[in-house]
Amino acid sequence: MARIQATLTPDELPKEWYNIVPDLNKLGGLPPPKDPEEGPSRLKLLPKILTKGCLELEVSNERWIPIPEDVRESYLRSGRPRPLFEAKGLERKLELKKVRLFYKAEFYSPTGSHKVNTAIPQCYYAKKEGYEAVVTETGAGQWGSALAYAAALQGDLDCIVYWVGAAYDLKPERLSLMHGFGAKVFRSPSQETETGKKLFKENNNHKGSLGIAISEAIEDVLNHEGERIYCLGSVLNHVLTHQTIIGLETKEQLKQLDVEPTIMTGCLGGGSNFGGLALPFVKEVLDGKAEIRFIAGQSAGSPNLDGEYKYDHADYAGFTPLLKMCTLGHKFEGVPIMAEGLRYHGAAPIMSLLRNNKLLESYVYPTDEELILEAANLFMRTEGFQIAPESAYGLRVGIDEALRAKREGREENIVVNLSGHGHYDTEFYGRVANCNSYTVV
Amino acid sequence: MARIQATLTPDELPKEWYNIVPDLNKLGGLPPPKDPEEGPSRLKLLPKILTKGCLELEVSNERWIPIPEDVRESYLRSGRPRPLFEAKGLERKLELKKVRLFYKAEFYSPTGSHKVNTAIPQCYYAKKEGYEAVVTETGAGQWGSALAYAAALQGDLDCIVYWVGAAYDLKPERLSLMHGFGAKVFRSPSQETETGKKLFKENNNHKGSLGIAISEAIEDVLNHEGERIYCLGSVLNHVLTHQTIIGLETKEQLKQLDVEPTIMTGCLGGGSNFGGLALPFVKEVLDGKAEIRFIAGQSAGSPNLDGEYKYDHADYAGFTPLLKMCTLGHKFEGVPIMAEGLRYHGAAPIMSLLRNNKLLESYVYPTDEELILEAANLFMRTEGFQIAPESAYGLRVGIDEALRAKREGREENIVVNLSGHGHYDTEFYGRVANCNSYTVV
Repeated sequence: MARIQATLTPDELPKEWYNIVPDLNKLGGLPPPKDPEEGPSRLKLLPKILTKGCLELEVSNERWIPIPEDVRESYLRSGRPRPLFEAKGLERKLELKKVRLFYKAEFYSPTGSHKVNTAIPQCYYAKKEGYEAVVTETGAGQWGSALAYAAALQGDLDCIVYWVGAAYDLKPERLSLMHGFGAKVFRSPSQETETGKKLFKENNNHKGSLGIAISEAIEDVLNHEGERIYCLGSVLNHVLTHQTIIGLETKEQLKQLDVEPTIMTGCLGGGSNFGGLALPFVKEVLDGKAEIRFIAGQSAGSPNLDGEYKYDHADYAGFTPLLKMCTLGHKFEGVPIMAEGLRYHGAAPIMSLLRNNKLLESYVYPTDEELILEAANLFMRTEGFQIAPESAYGLRVGIDEALRAKREGREENIVVNLSGHGHYDTEFYGRVANCNSYTVV
Repeated sequence: MARIQATLTPDELPKEWYNIVPDLNKLGGLPPPKDPEEGPSRLKLLPKILTKGCLELEVSNERWIPIPEDVRESYLRSGRPRPLFEAKGLERKLELKKVRLFYKAEFYSPTGSHKVNTAIPQCYYAKKEGYEAVVTETGAGQWGSALAYAAALQGDLDCIVYWVGAAYDLKPERLSLMHGFGAKVFRSPSQETETGKKLFKENNNHKGSLGIAISEAIEDVLNHEGERIYCLGSVLNHVLTHQTIIGLETKEQLKQLDVEPTIMTGCLGGGSNFGGLALPFVKEVLDGKAEIRFIAGQSAGSPNLDGEYKYDHADYAGFTPLLKMCTLGHKFEGVPIMAEGLRYHGAAPIMSLLRNNKLLESYVYPTDEELILEAANLFMRTEGFQIAPESAYGLRVGIDEALRAKREGREENIVVNLSGHGHYDTEFYGRVANCNSYTVV
């Protein structure tokens, strides 16, 4: 029987994360964060809002970072290592002969996304450093759920979530999930912060935005210094480093299957899931040991990889330092889509540097999301998993590349990161069900 | 680091199912199905409605049944083998010292329940025997989803589901799931059969029942003889035999962890998930090689293990032969509960024989389900998984046994089968979120 699934045993769970920062010196180095010319120092603010554990990793130049044993235990509890599948059903349906398609099953996460991979170490550091609560914002709800979950695993650690109003209103299932883990969840703009109160006063049905919610979370933490600490689910170096657990597992699994990847895809909102898969393989490319194309799926509503590569804030209100990134501007609000997790103005500095060095391509899909629905539908009918709308962007890239390679007679080994499940995405799957064609692009 | 998760590699996926029937001779043998004294022969109807593959297994006296390679491949595609976890978070929270608690993660199933384990071989036989479509009924929707999934994996096999009207109206997420897999789903009573048309004419908003839906599915198959074939998701011997994949994996995993189970629990509606876990261990007990208590969690709304042990039909309308089972009577409709999958009048003949020989205990929980909500909540806050309402009955038994053993100073190794996830159980988890206590019973 052909191998169609690769797993690792609990003992084979990676013992170190991979930090790409030292290897980026080959690309001139990662531009450091800096303060804006006006206003208070945001850099000096960082120790007040991030755990020591995360900050140390944020500025680390060590290539391999030991994963604390407690974090490894929590990774096992969260069901890691996760399987890598060969998409046999899809390959058969598309009559692929020389093209193979693989997917990493991050959708097996307890909360439905890869976000738990960084939530777990962040809550571990918060508890270890004596904080009472972790505080964050969430857009689609995936990150808030992940942090609520990780706080619950720690025990005796509270979790407070500011949730973008538009999404909060639409997702009672995710709200129950966060409440089930014991989290406190506020619709943003909220009545808990000055930022929130001001906006709420202007419009008591304000739909909110990720930038606003970030500002609220940071303000909350500054109001409770020493008791509460902020956690960020994407963009920063330490988050991407935590996420390399995905790629490190995948590397071992591809070895098991004796496969060398030639194309890797994933969706890219801030960059943590795609970075998580890709970075250990980018190392191979930078070391001249492999040739791999990295292609991100994005929405035309927030195509941040096509933005300008410049210093910009990571949040709407400008609480964060300036980061060098491909950005649409930190006041950019994007267009609402079902794959809400892709609506963000900037790409992570690490991913942006890769982009600027032409190591990272992107495909941008229209905001009506018809092409995305098609990919999710085809995947259900051949592979049987109901993936997140966001993940379907990465999948769409993978399928389109497979069909292109087939037309051109190329051999390819394509690996897609499927970052989450879509079990709570009722509207999306209501539409997927009625979608029976596949538009070849 | 303590082992808290046991996995098997794809190569270690069991190659044979375990059929307990020959070993039941030690208990006087399994009473065979028979015809009622009046009406047409139901036994003679069976070859028209069930695949040859399933019927052969239904009456097999072979102890070990080779799993066809295609079925093993589909098991791998469905994510099998599934992990076994030690519930470290729960053990810590309950301060268990000498009691260990393990759970089998059947909730990792693509459709959300263990039902895929039998849906896959049933669709395999249907395709192999040249049928165009599989037809079934579904109540809660788990079985219909599983069959739709398995038919999609086969490719070129249609799936037709008659879904009890009351549940159909309440579960748009599950309808999208079945549609996403390409299934045709009819609200029952439907316009597709004489049975349905008649009832629909009387009341075009008829709520339906499982019995009506079964009647419609069988009528549909009889109207399309040779083209369509019927599939059943529980109760029958072949279904339980397919499900032993759960227990066979668990056995290897417990060996890895060097643990001998002393108590095994699960919920019991018809008996397929609990049988699936327990039967390979019942063999050990019958062989005198182990001492294990088997305890099923049931609802006071349908406590079929407390019913009379006698011959009865498996369906409301009396289409099936008479089976010797613990039954509340085939006209019994039970009380609606959130764990809809537990509402069934009889226990599988195999489980009923074990019950009658005092090898199977049961705990019955009140229909307000408060105790069940508590168990699901405690599990989320300590282990982080959102399990199905049905599965929470088995979990409740496991936790209560753990606490009892702790009070009495006993050592126990408790294994719980968690048969499904609760991601679509919005009402249930809306209530779980508000449930912060645990009533010690």
